Amino acid sequence: MPKKLMHGQWQDVEEELAADITAGRFAKGAPLPKEAELMGRFGVGRHSVRRAIAQLQNRGLIQVEHGKGTFVRDGRLNYRLSERTRFSQNLLDQGREPFGKAIKERVIEAPRRVAEALRLPLDEQVYHIVRLEYADEEPVNFSNAFFPVRRFPGFDKSRREGQTVSSILADYGVTDYIRLRTDFIVRLPTKEEARQLMQAETQPILLQKKVDVDMKGTPVSFSESVWAGERVQFSIDNTSQLLNALAQNS
Amino acid sequence: MPKKLMHGQWQDVEEELAADITAGRFAKGAPLPKEAELMGRFGVGRHSVRRAIAQLQNRGLIQVEHGKGTFVRDGRLNYRLSERTRFSQNLLDQGREPFGKAIKERVIEAPRRVAEALRLPLDEQVYHIVRLEYADEEPVNFSNAFFPVRRFPGFDKSRREGQTVSSILADYGVTDYIRLRTDFIVRLPTKEEARQLMQAETQPILLQKKVDVDMKGTPVSFSESVWAGERVQFSIDNTSQLLNALAQNS
Repeated sequence: MPKKLMHGQWQDVEEELAADITAGRFAKGAPLPKEAELMGRFGVGRHSVRRAIAQLQNRGLIQVEHGKGTFVRDGRLNYRLSERTRFSQNLLDQGREPFGKAIKERVIEAPRRVAEALRLPLDEQVYHIVRLEYADEEPVNFSNAFFPVRRFPGFDKSRREGQTVSSILADYGVTDYIRLRTDFIVRLPTKEEARQLMQAETQPILLQKKVDVDMKGTPVSFSESVWAGERVQFSIDNTSQLLNALAQNS
Repeated sequence: MPKKLMHGQWQDVEEELAADITAGRFAKGAPLPKEAELMGRFGVGRHSVRRAIAQLQNRGLIQVEHGKGTFVRDGRLNYRLSERTRFSQNLLDQGREPFGKAIKERVIEAPRRVAEALRLPLDEQVYHIVRLEYADEEPVNFSNAFFPVRRFPGFDKSRREGQTVSSILADYGVTDYIRLRTDFIVRLPTKEEARQLMQAETQPILLQKKVDVDMKGTPVSFSESVWAGERVQFSIDNTSQLLNALAQNS
């Protein structure tokens, strides 16, 4: 006999409701169905429903407002990790408002890991930008980005004159770039990271390191950026590669 | 004047040493350089070095053995998130010993999220495998995988007879498959996940959901797997796509 539930009862309730929320099956801010309704839908007891709800709250997917009830949270930002991902477009595609601000900018000598990623001699100058990115006024990403000064000698001056990074790159002939490599790890935030992202120090972050190259394959930037783990979901879609593979196979 | 250090002094010491460790610049289990040596190398005070070391210990990159000193840990497993990633090969490429064991297997009716991922009618039967994967005897991944029973009707029987999953798929003509889509989120583990992975409940995990499809684009499996955040580093390498783009541009 096939059984209806899987991991144990409450984990399944948790995963089904989590899937409903992230798939947008509830309106933003809508109340979660009542306990009795969930017991009926999943064929489980009150204890399992309560445990699943507590877990969804831990995951930041729902919000318990005492005296008022339990509500679906706005949901995680879905960030696509592709070779052409741009932060703002990614947010706009989901109806979220992107906003970013530079916290600090300066020319420094490249530390070893930065020099290696950009394939520069050690201690060569790089332009360093510390930024905070928001989605609908909530901080989601805190980043340190590095650009080779020899390749873009006017970087400092152009920034002081208010130019955007992409227009500076374009001035030097870099009108397009591609994500060459992304590495990431999961860990707890430092005090500073938690403070910048306005999140708890006990909640994880995802540290993403990436190298962008121009259309000749030369690195144009390296960045280390920290994502607020509770507020983002990441995705990699290989549909285009799959379509290529299918075309070759047919 | 360019300044040598970036985020603040200790964060830079932390990131440089972390990069050295993950890049394999220290032998596994080697002692970390003495405080005085690190103070000299980075041009910072003892306080910054100590703070960086404490942080590296939090990140699981080094191990402080009282009375003996500070040692570089074996390092994170590097897991490549590509459309053709196979767990065992990935580990073998890094000189790590893969080992996996099935914890539970059974036929169940597909819960909604599973049915949707596999593009099946709701409550159609799926074969469910719960597994734990190890790298050098350390658990790194705890997974729940689902296969459509209608497509692979003998799954249950073949498994009882000791067949591997890939040989069962091959029996039904699926000799190759491709990762269609991967979604992941970062969060703290459930009690059960922490127990299975033998890790602290206060340390994050990465939950990966993925759909594999056959060479005609039909889903053959869906899985939800939980990675021990402290033990793994993930990477996406777009070099091959970049080479294609360069070829088209030239």
